[in-house]
Amino acid sequence: MTLALDTAAQDLLFREAHTANAFTDEPVSDEQVQAIYDLIKYGPTAFNEQPLRIVLVRTPEGRERLVKHMAEGNRAKTAAAPLVAVLAADNEFHHELPRLLPSFPQAKDLFFSERPVREASAQLNGALQAAYFIIGVRAAGLAAGPMTGFDAEGLNKEFFGDGEHSVLAVVNIGKPGDGAFYPRSPRLEYDEVVTTV
Amino acid sequence: MTLALDTAAQDLLFREAHTANAFTDEPVSDEQVQAIYDLIKYGPTAFNEQPLRIVLVRTPEGRERLVKHMAEGNRAKTAAAPLVAVLAADNEFHHELPRLLPSFPQAKDLFFSERPVREASAQLNGALQAAYFIIGVRAAGLAAGPMTGFDAEGLNKEFFGDGEHSVLAVVNIGKPGDGAFYPRSPRLEYDEVVTTV
Repeated sequence: MTLALDTAAQDLLFREAHTANAFTDEPVSDEQVQAIYDLIKYGPTAFNEQPLRIVLVRTPEGRERLVKHMAEGNRAKTAAAPLVAVLAADNEFHHELPRLLPSFPQAKDLFFSERPVREASAQLNGALQAAYFIIGVRAAGLAAGPMTGFDAEGLNKEFFGDGEHSVLAVVNIGKPGDGAFYPRSPRLEYDEVVTTV
Repeated sequence: MTLALDTAAQDLLFREAHTANAFTDEPVSDEQVQAIYDLIKYGPTAFNEQPLRIVLVRTPEGRERLVKHMAEGNRAKTAAAPLVAVLAADNEFHHELPRLLPSFPQAKDLFFSERPVREASAQLNGALQAAYFIIGVRAAGLAAGPMTGFDAEGLNKEFFGDGEHSVLAVVNIGKPGDGAFYPRSPRLEYDEVVTTV
């Protein structure tokens, strides 16, 4: 046993956690999402840039606007989940950078004056934060159903009309319901993933 | 208290965890890295594609090959860290997909016949796994020092001559040493990140 993290936490976050495809009717409160954010906001990002932006879809109108952009196989479960979070990267995160990295306010102009550079950094670091968010949902005792099957351009326009955001993932959230879980699929072996030089 | 995760685990993984910039001499064993991988391999990826590949840099020769591609400000700490992990996305992950997703072996040809599509999916899901890895390092009671300041093309060629991998991040790993931590930089407020529709 070489991990410092206790076994219950290992199970909650990784070993016993599964992507959920069906949920009970139990609602997910704003307070729960706030608790998730207040935990995962500490996850590291390059230059502390924190490009993740989250749209919580709560109203019937919002749900309708969302579901029509989802891949067909994702529509029914996204329509039925207690809460859905649209996770996006803010490609114009650099505006906040002097405030977020007070030790190095020049970073905004030195590194991020070009949009393609900002976009690449926002994609990578937004994805890191998306993973922290999935872990955070599990830390709240909830199940996450992250999806990438959607019309990304359609979602970008639907929820971020400014052309400055890229949707990374859509995550269904709730308590797992009947038939929530598929059998665990195989994982790559250590020796297939890790090499040493 | 709305989280199911115990406070000690919250602190270990997020609240008290900091990016480390200096380390003690205490080595990091292969057994520890294996324990990290055996935990974080369960983190979800799209189509269970698991594109993350890890190169552990242990030999002096390997360290030299690595450090020359790092940004100048990252060289000294990367040269001195007990262990360095190069995290990359395998853009040709689809070869393994029929084995990794036995419930839907057609996914390989239906979704991933084109390299740009594979690459985008490998970048996103590789970054999710990079975040799981950072969390896993902390779960092992170690500190992580993730960096994106390097010549990516140089690193890709140095450690993956096949043109099929993209380095996502380089992570220093060890026990934090003197002056390891900078003061915590500010985090965005909930209302700056989360909106509801």
